[in-house]
Amino acid sequence: MPAIQPRTLKGFRDFPPALALVRERMVDVARAVYRSYGFAPIDTPALELAEVLLAKLDPGAEIARQLYRFVDNGGRDVALRFDLTVPLARFAAMHVQDLGVPFKRYHIGPVWRGENTQAGRYREFLQCDFDTIGTTSSAADIEVALVIHDLLVALGFERFTVRVSDRHVLAGIVEVLGVGDRTGGVLRSVDKLAKQGPDAVHAELVDVVGLTSGQAADVLDAASSDLDAVVERFGASDRVAGGAARLRELLEVAAAVGIPDGRLAVDLSISRGLDYYTGTVYETFLADLPTIGSVCSGGRYDDLAGLYTNQSLPGVGASLGLDRLLAAMEELGMLGAETTGAPVLFVRFPGVALADLHGLAADVRRSGVGAEVYPDVKKVGAQLQLAERRGARVAVLAGPAELATGVVKVKDLASRTEAAVPRSALVSEVRRVMGG
Amino acid sequence: MPAIQPRTLKGFRDFPPALALVRERMVDVARAVYRSYGFAPIDTPALELAEVLLAKLDPGAEIARQLYRFVDNGGRDVALRFDLTVPLARFAAMHVQDLGVPFKRYHIGPVWRGENTQAGRYREFLQCDFDTIGTTSSAADIEVALVIHDLLVALGFERFTVRVSDRHVLAGIVEVLGVGDRTGGVLRSVDKLAKQGPDAVHAELVDVVGLTSGQAADVLDAASSDLDAVVERFGASDRVAGGAARLRELLEVAAAVGIPDGRLAVDLSISRGLDYYTGTVYETFLADLPTIGSVCSGGRYDDLAGLYTNQSLPGVGASLGLDRLLAAMEELGMLGAETTGAPVLFVRFPGVALADLHGLAADVRRSGVGAEVYPDVKKVGAQLQLAERRGARVAVLAGPAELATGVVKVKDLASRTEAAVPRSALVSEVRRVMGG
Repeated sequence: MPAIQPRTLKGFRDFPPALALVRERMVDVARAVYRSYGFAPIDTPALELAEVLLAKLDPGAEIARQLYRFVDNGGRDVALRFDLTVPLARFAAMHVQDLGVPFKRYHIGPVWRGENTQAGRYREFLQCDFDTIGTTSSAADIEVALVIHDLLVALGFERFTVRVSDRHVLAGIVEVLGVGDRTGGVLRSVDKLAKQGPDAVHAELVDVVGLTSGQAADVLDAASSDLDAVVERFGASDRVAGGAARLRELLEVAAAVGIPDGRLAVDLSISRGLDYYTGTVYETFLADLPTIGSVCSGGRYDDLAGLYTNQSLPGVGASLGLDRLLAAMEELGMLGAETTGAPVLFVRFPGVALADLHGLAADVRRSGVGAEVYPDVKKVGAQLQLAERRGARVAVLAGPAELATGVVKVKDLASRTEAAVPRSALVSEVRRVMGG
Repeated sequence: MPAIQPRTLKGFRDFPPALALVRERMVDVARAVYRSYGFAPIDTPALELAEVLLAKLDPGAEIARQLYRFVDNGGRDVALRFDLTVPLARFAAMHVQDLGVPFKRYHIGPVWRGENTQAGRYREFLQCDFDTIGTTSSAADIEVALVIHDLLVALGFERFTVRVSDRHVLAGIVEVLGVGDRTGGVLRSVDKLAKQGPDAVHAELVDVVGLTSGQAADVLDAASSDLDAVVERFGASDRVAGGAARLRELLEVAAAVGIPDGRLAVDLSISRGLDYYTGTVYETFLADLPTIGSVCSGGRYDDLAGLYTNQSLPGVGASLGLDRLLAAMEELGMLGAETTGAPVLFVRFPGVALADLHGLAADVRRSGVGAEVYPDVKKVGAQLQLAERRGARVAVLAGPAELATGVVKVKDLASRTEAAVPRSALVSEVRRVMGG
């Protein structure tokens, strides 16, 4: 019996190659898109002083109870970060003077929350955030929507909608209806529209928020109206008109950069539950995976780092729920079977010098195609079987007979056809098979 | 006064864009090289059960005292991983039946050790490990040396040496000298040769290990000899002959794949201090940064996961000390000033619609070059100054006058020259400046 039972902690998971390869590619895609808009990476420690992480939370907040918090060997009260926004606030307070504004950063890294575990939810997950801080320009808000769009396309999705609103529009309507003191409650209720439906939200607006039935109907009507109808009815409000103008500018830019119809939509019912957001808000839904909710969400906030610095740092950004997306793709069988980093396997034969095989493999690698040499001298069938199981695409068979006559056999593992070619034609034959 | 003083924990650090961009590129390079040899990524949780992490450690081991260990909210005794080898052992015990052997994985992720902080050493650092497990074939050992070589070249180094030995050679010599019961002590002493010099090691071999002065001299002589001389004198030992044959095969393969002379060398004095290693051992030194020690080290081990499984899992691998390398490059002023993800900045002018600017920027981006639009309408000089400071290479100036006449100005921020070109020629002009 082994001395220790090998296991992971409840709510944590291993990423075997089939998952980790896909996750790495998703991260690569996210980075490339963020960089292409001028966002630059930062990283911050996984562990922070608890007082830094807790600064913005109510002591009774759920997230505070979910913290991995402990006293370190130096007697410090520390905790694992639960998001990347608080570390950004702390980072900005310390470094933004040196870095200048507008400061555009992305940050991809794990965060930890001791949540109750459910399907697709883990206690450690990767956040992929990007934010522009230090500017109130609506150009930054518009850019966030473009980045979300390009991100989803680059990840391979076509059927999705980035839904955008500006909280000032709904807040202005609430003011016009004479219940401006209830704005927070109204926005929190309207946020539930997609999940709970209009009847439930109407009831909540009346019973909990305290609107009249007519006011509740007006709010719900506006939230599901298009921009023109809202401006016609409520456009006398500067707040409504300002928000609507910003959303229209966004739609103009989306058209100018060629975003197809339907991918980016104004949806005044999007309000995000958090009081944190103060302007534009974003949610992103996949047509083929509606049940997982928004996969990329965010918004504008007025003051990122007020608890750590006197400098006012407004900003706007969003966060890609990469691990949630990955778990959903896994559940839906959307992941491939590829578990090797190299598509080409050199079969090892007895009587062939490793130097010969590695010389050939190095040629393939130098052409930009990954190639591995099977380490053990085993039956050819067993070597090929492992290669196929791992998703390799090409096997090279160069036994003593082949090498003596200056040829190598190149086998297409998908079609199971093989061709004998001169050694000098190995790379071109491998590339031909890979391209086919 | 802000409510909370923003600071990081002692021994932890932030990575601002100038550092994080370089680190991301190093990680990308490492992944690409690992994959090109057929290694596939895995990931494991940062937190593990303490009993899993501590299984292989003496209770008094320094590393056990450096653990970030605590009781979580569910009453579990947990700790942050201190390396990626123990998680690999635990992972292999759980998953290797499904994944099959040989199993080639890389793992790039942070680890935590509450060490005393020194220059260039942090309590959180990135490990970049790769290992082949489930085979005793020397082909796997040879591949590790090739991977280390390609990794250093891909990271931009030219003047370096991967030093390789096989512990069986020195161990065989110690047996021939009649002190085979002192092998562990001899290897640990010889490991200090580069740092402490032959006199100190000679003294230790005599005073601590208990060799005679003649035996100690023989050991030191052999450790600094070349392979031919050692085989001539000690080749009757099967252990010496076997190790030497494996090292010669490695040199043959290195020649076959075109590794330049001096980049890969047999050095019998390399023995690694750890008892853990049982065969081939590797260390890698940079000619221009000798003081930071080995930047990529590893070796062969007989049994990875014996505490967690009855399956015997021999393996071989190495680890790139990426953060140590990065800290050294930072200290030596080897890092660039680039802090933006996009090399092209579109200057924003009053009176120009964002839709026009974003239409042009999208064209540049679609050509594969990152481009950002400055969000605020500010003085042109201030916009250009920030772009230059962040290492942008091209500014596009498209004001109302330019757009009205269908031209844009493209400014090379290095040479400070600019050219007015038709809108349709924007992308080719940007690419021309970038290529120049």
